[in-house]
Amino acid sequence: MPALTLSLRTYSILVGLLGAGLVSAQTFQRLGACPTLGCVFPPDQTDFLAGQLFDIRLEVHAPVNGSEAYNGGVVNEAFTFCIQRDGKGPCTDVTKFFKVPDPALEKWSFNYYEDLFAKDAGQSTGVNVASKAYRALSLDKPGSYQAKLVYNKGATTVANWVVRQPTKRKAKNVLFFIGDGMTQPMITAARLIAHKSINGKYQSLMQLDQMDNLGHQMTHSIDSFITDSANSATALYTGKKSTVNALNVWVDSSKNSFDDPKVETIAELFRRRIGGAIGMVSTAFIADATPAALCAHTRDRGQYAPIVAEFLNGASFINSTLAWPTSCQGPDVIFGGGAEQFIAGKGSPNGTDYYKAFAAKGYTVVNTATQLKAAGNKAKTLGIFSISNMAKWLDRNVLKSNLAGLKNSPTGDGTDAIDQPGLKDMTLKAIDILQARTKKQEGWFLMSEAASIDKMMHVLDYDRALGELLELDDTVRASIAHLKKIGEYENTLIVVTADHGHGFDVFGGTDTKYLKEQTTDRKKRGAVGVYAQSGLSGYTVAPGSSPNNNTVIFGTEGPNFPVQWNPRYTYAAGFGANPDRREDYALTEKGPRVPAVSSADGVIANPDDKPDGFSVPGTLAVEESQGVHSLQDVSVFANGPGSEAFRGVYNSVDIFFKIADALGLGKAK
Amino acid sequence: MPALTLSLRTYSILVGLLGAGLVSAQTFQRLGACPTLGCVFPPDQTDFLAGQLFDIRLEVHAPVNGSEAYNGGVVNEAFTFCIQRDGKGPCTDVTKFFKVPDPALEKWSFNYYEDLFAKDAGQSTGVNVASKAYRALSLDKPGSYQAKLVYNKGATTVANWVVRQPTKRKAKNVLFFIGDGMTQPMITAARLIAHKSINGKYQSLMQLDQMDNLGHQMTHSIDSFITDSANSATALYTGKKSTVNALNVWVDSSKNSFDDPKVETIAELFRRRIGGAIGMVSTAFIADATPAALCAHTRDRGQYAPIVAEFLNGASFINSTLAWPTSCQGPDVIFGGGAEQFIAGKGSPNGTDYYKAFAAKGYTVVNTATQLKAAGNKAKTLGIFSISNMAKWLDRNVLKSNLAGLKNSPTGDGTDAIDQPGLKDMTLKAIDILQARTKKQEGWFLMSEAASIDKMMHVLDYDRALGELLELDDTVRASIAHLKKIGEYENTLIVVTADHGHGFDVFGGTDTKYLKEQTTDRKKRGAVGVYAQSGLSGYTVAPGSSPNNNTVIFGTEGPNFPVQWNPRYTYAAGFGANPDRREDYALTEKGPRVPAVSSADGVIANPDDKPDGFSVPGTLAVEESQGVHSLQDVSVFANGPGSEAFRGVYNSVDIFFKIADALGLGKAK
Repeated sequence: MPALTLSLRTYSILVGLLGAGLVSAQTFQRLGACPTLGCVFPPDQTDFLAGQLFDIRLEVHAPVNGSEAYNGGVVNEAFTFCIQRDGKGPCTDVTKFFKVPDPALEKWSFNYYEDLFAKDAGQSTGVNVASKAYRALSLDKPGSYQAKLVYNKGATTVANWVVRQPTKRKAKNVLFFIGDGMTQPMITAARLIAHKSINGKYQSLMQLDQMDNLGHQMTHSIDSFITDSANSATALYTGKKSTVNALNVWVDSSKNSFDDPKVETIAELFRRRIGGAIGMVSTAFIADATPAALCAHTRDRGQYAPIVAEFLNGASFINSTLAWPTSCQGPDVIFGGGAEQFIAGKGSPNGTDYYKAFAAKGYTVVNTATQLKAAGNKAKTLGIFSISNMAKWLDRNVLKSNLAGLKNSPTGDGTDAIDQPGLKDMTLKAIDILQARTKKQEGWFLMSEAASIDKMMHVLDYDRALGELLELDDTVRASIAHLKKIGEYENTLIVVTADHGHGFDVFGGTDTKYLKEQTTDRKKRGAVGVYAQSGLSGYTVAPGSSPNNNTVIFGTEGPNFPVQWNPRYTYAAGFGANPDRREDYALTEKGPRVPAVSSADGVIANPDDKPDGFSVPGTLAVEESQGVHSLQDVSVFANGPGSEAFRGVYNSVDIFFKIADALGLGKAK
Repeated sequence: MPALTLSLRTYSILVGLLGAGLVSAQTFQRLGACPTLGCVFPPDQTDFLAGQLFDIRLEVHAPVNGSEAYNGGVVNEAFTFCIQRDGKGPCTDVTKFFKVPDPALEKWSFNYYEDLFAKDAGQSTGVNVASKAYRALSLDKPGSYQAKLVYNKGATTVANWVVRQPTKRKAKNVLFFIGDGMTQPMITAARLIAHKSINGKYQSLMQLDQMDNLGHQMTHSIDSFITDSANSATALYTGKKSTVNALNVWVDSSKNSFDDPKVETIAELFRRRIGGAIGMVSTAFIADATPAALCAHTRDRGQYAPIVAEFLNGASFINSTLAWPTSCQGPDVIFGGGAEQFIAGKGSPNGTDYYKAFAAKGYTVVNTATQLKAAGNKAKTLGIFSISNMAKWLDRNVLKSNLAGLKNSPTGDGTDAIDQPGLKDMTLKAIDILQARTKKQEGWFLMSEAASIDKMMHVLDYDRALGELLELDDTVRASIAHLKKIGEYENTLIVVTADHGHGFDVFGGTDTKYLKEQTTDRKKRGAVGVYAQSGLSGYTVAPGSSPNNNTVIFGTEGPNFPVQWNPRYTYAAGFGANPDRREDYALTEKGPRVPAVSSADGVIANPDDKPDGFSVPGTLAVEESQGVHSLQDVSVFANGPGSEAFRGVYNSVDIFFKIADALGLGKAK
């Protein structure tokens, strides 16, 4: 089974959504981005690229009970929707404005809880809904638009939309790296363990430290201030904020998780407008949110089999009654884990062998690093290298025995997936294939995700998370060198960013030997030195050597990794929030870490994790078995044509517009 | 008594340093920046501005016992020290190179612990030392220098120094803001509570978000990866990394805390080279590290009375036997708290009335916001507005009753300091005075510190900390407007940064009503919603209004502050590390917060803090009563002439060089 990025609790809420009632946002929200009884999607404050395809969904709500009860729960079905451009002329009915027929009225109902007290008491609020949807529209003229829903005899919901002015193409290719969950405090910690500092001056730097342009992006959701990776990838790829768990749709209140109003992604736009090559690379299972969001449209990121079917066939394959005349048309490159969606069985589309489905459409299929290396560059290529998420850098390179016994071969034959490529191997091969498949000057778009920075931070396995981050940094460095070698560096916009944070930070240094030998929790806490007592990094010197040793030596896989991972003096790090756990600030050799387990009293610290450590009771709800995402702005690093636009502070949705501008994807009429 | 920025534990170590033995860095370090038995200060990797004054200190160590025991503890006093420029010519003896006499040999001894086991066992290591010091030197030619100490019959310690190439002056004035302890996660949280977001788009932004140039700086110490504010201010003002607690010196192993090798600060350079006006503004007691580091030189930031004496008279006033021909010459503006160093008594220099000492040198002295406003702009001005740290923005503006009963009048008459100015009031007045005192084109340099972002994070009072951060942001905004008004904006380099972090981040939203009403700690934890359940900011809507309310209204003190500070749904934040505490994620109305208190078993959670909350046992040593600093890189924001240089990622010491370059302070010979 694929490891879930989201915590158990979030998923239990999601199950609630698909079952009894809607608790899609904070429990006091009836429906995200709809504070009144008349809902418009795309909602107020939406910006579009000129010509970007989107659906409109209108909903009129009549709560049966609760604080907003209206008209005994009887929906007033007489509502109108019109659009006005640049504040001029009349507000034109949507059917005339877009020259589309008026669709049939849809009706449904849902339930939600108004707050935690209501939830504890089982007192849900029922809501009856009347709705219309208009599919696959676009706004082609730059300017401001005011869309107005008039409902319930004169109540209005206004949505202000902006179509941004298109710009001239600057970049031929885009290489878009996402360090999932990667924050600046993590980058700082990774630098500390992988780069030698002498008297306060680093003798080498991260590649990220050396990028030409630096920015910050705000990651919050449309309807909550903490995002997940589906929602944040939607913002990065479409320029639209949405709701947790949603992929390239605004979340409506209907039960069907494939009828929510869609919006076109950067990959779909690049295919439709320019016909360039596209690729997705991830160390996660490939149906996971960040790669999925390039091509899939659903409000439920957990629909893994349909998501993979959408990769190959587009969204209209899943719900053929809804027009959606754009798709990824089968990405040229798909590299990652997640064989459970390809091996014929309960995880694959309709239970069929989906390796065969891809092969039937001309894909070369590879399942090992060796096959990947040997594959040609001319064909579309599907590389699936493990069941579930791929192995972590630390296990693949340092603690290799952890790869044994997992029975996760991507062939499904029950052997171990030992021969897995790293992010660097996958990314460089993807570049070669995309380059070979770009016949003229269409160029290519490649998304490469270091997925397990996030996954390892979720399980508080910060060493493995930093290993993943260093692998990303090494991949960026190698990609720049490779692009220079093939003569494409000057043509390629390179962007490195994250989708959200985790509240991780280093606060001191631990004498792990001392900690282990103390006999009480309170004495063990005394092993951590802070300020001057934090000391120097023990990771950049040979085992047994003092951190004061000023010799610069290279770690595993070259100069940009730690020389040792389990020095006596380790960094001590903490989290903004965590489940109950035990802590010893030492490398989890048999990993990845499992910090907490279920019990009759909810989640408790895993007694087998860090048995020599001390107990750290959590701050999260006792349903949470993992750490959670955090609010902090994340960094953006960019090189190449169009990269100056990534300086400064902006919203996550602006990343889409900056990339689309570099590729010249906006087209005004 | 001034509140201490550092934790109790750090101070107990410091007491050890001044008493029985040296534990100046991590317990396994004999002396910071000296891994061998031959020490050179300035150490390897030091960069200088051309012409910047500094001392040289050489030490040869002979440990009596322990892992490095040498020659039975008898120091070999025959050592030589020479310097070679750009790898050419002979290595010239220091006395010839600088044309200075050879000083007398100094001798002393010290003790330290090699690790925590040795400390527990009381087994210290003794070290005998022979030393020489050369005072007030400078390197005037840009290039690389190799300084070589030959000791113990052929052992060598090499220090590579670089004198950077001077650049032409670009800015007339510098306005340097320091948000003490301010991180990007805090800025993100401050934005969340003070600026209204509609459907994921902020309707207004922080001033920091709108600055022209963005960078990151690395804050680590010379000999440990976590810094304090003294050491980090030294880096920002001199371009030299040093050790925790040190102000503009490298820390040697002698007992005297005023004989450590000094280095010239940006303020001293600006006075000596250009004769411009200088000012220091802080919401801390004015002898605290960040303002102190502009003008003082000592390895012990706790020497408050001498520090204030140095403000007025320079370093040579404290230790007249050591040449130091540069000083702040009495800053034109000194505004802050810390009346205990001015009221005649045990906190003031030699017990004298230091208000009178300043007045005798021509200073106008003011003690209230009203007096500040009424004061002229022509004279040097000392404004001291409270005993200890000044009142917090939240108490001064929202919870005003907290100002009563503190008996902290800066006059020392035992009344309350009710009439205190804010950071904005002090900064704008400082600008006016500096401007009036700049007769020709010398320009001015002003440092303005929001000190209590840090102080409130230390006591986990995140609401007050964010209030301080928003006050800083508002001050930056108002300063830009004021500079435009007086015609100096185009002439002024504005830099806003921090000196270090705290591991703070927001991870969810709390239903404080629900939390309060649950009866067990584990149930109370269920009040926090994460991801979609984090909801929207309750701080930007009127009390009683829903966070879904899309109306934009303004908070206390204008548009850039929260509308309410205690909504039902609050943000939930955590820390990388904390002492034992109780938590309810609600405003501490009677504050500032005191999260932990001493007990026979070490520090424990304060039972009177958040009595309706739940217990969160800490991760720090049980001697720690406060949160501690963290590793993360901090942001740099800059506008004005020379501000492009602040883009990208760099070391904290580079801030000094970028400012010095903008002012044209480097002078090659």
